[in-house]
Amino acid sequence: MRLSILAGFSTIIISAAALAGADGHASDKMLKSAVEARQAHMDLFAFNLSTLGAMAKGEVDYDAAAASVAAGNLAALASMDQSTYWLPGSDSDSVEGSRALPVIWTADSKIGERGAAFAEAVSAMETAAGTDLASLQAAMGDLGKSCGGCHDDYRKPRD
Amino acid sequence: MRLSILAGFSTIIISAAALAGADGHASDKMLKSAVEARQAHMDLFAFNLSTLGAMAKGEVDYDAAAASVAAGNLAALASMDQSTYWLPGSDSDSVEGSRALPVIWTADSKIGERGAAFAEAVSAMETAAGTDLASLQAAMGDLGKSCGGCHDDYRKPRD
Repeated sequence: MRLSILAGFSTIIISAAALAGADGHASDKMLKSAVEARQAHMDLFAFNLSTLGAMAKGEVDYDAAAASVAAGNLAALASMDQSTYWLPGSDSDSVEGSRALPVIWTADSKIGERGAAFAEAVSAMETAAGTDLASLQAAMGDLGKSCGGCHDDYRKPRD
Repeated sequence: MRLSILAGFSTIIISAAALAGADGHASDKMLKSAVEARQAHMDLFAFNLSTLGAMAKGEVDYDAAAASVAAGNLAALASMDQSTYWLPGSDSDSVEGSRALPVIWTADSKIGERGAAFAEAVSAMETAAGTDLASLQAAMGDLGKSCGGCHDDYRKPRD
């Protein structure tokens, strides 16, 4: 699973590189649809993370089976090829509703390695979630940090 | 992959059965969040299906790599455990914005087998998409029909 997760995230860079010179190639409709798909993908990450977060914080009882389901869903989402979402020209300056900062698509963007760190943290959670509460809590710290790896530097704050 | 896809969809039935007597157990917030997650999941199916559909109809040139990416993403989505989305009490009569008809959660609901048929069609598309255009087109017919398997009988028409 780990390899396939990393493959999924590496496509963010491939997409940026492959399409970097193709400004205006994607139609407005394609760009809007890419932003919506990206946000749907993030919603599903958040939905499954909230299950794990509630257990980690003791808001709900630890349930090994439910934790494994949520972690497995995160892994499936992380394994998906997102290259079709992260189109150049779909940044927060270009598409209404997008919070993806333009710096994502610049040459020295660290988005690929931040994505890889997230994928590693998801992979660790996949093992930890069904083990016990302490393991889940430990994995949750790294996973939360890895979310911040992109959100802190590459996501526009809400107005 | 096929087994894991079927496992993902069978959880719809398990969820309905396991929680059938638990009316009111899920909070309004949980139900709303379940509906939103379901819709995000459907948006991602639609996004990837639209890539395959455009090729099948000849609106864009056939591209084996792009078709395989889209089909692989459908398979990843179909493999996810959706039991946490399909909560009893999240039907179109109970939650604003939900189009999931209450009949989904009745004893003689065919939603499980319709979901399994969809999963089979996704699995066939995963093989066909990267082969050639004719194979993709053939698989698209079955896949479209299997979408209808749930949407025709279990989804409320738009107002």
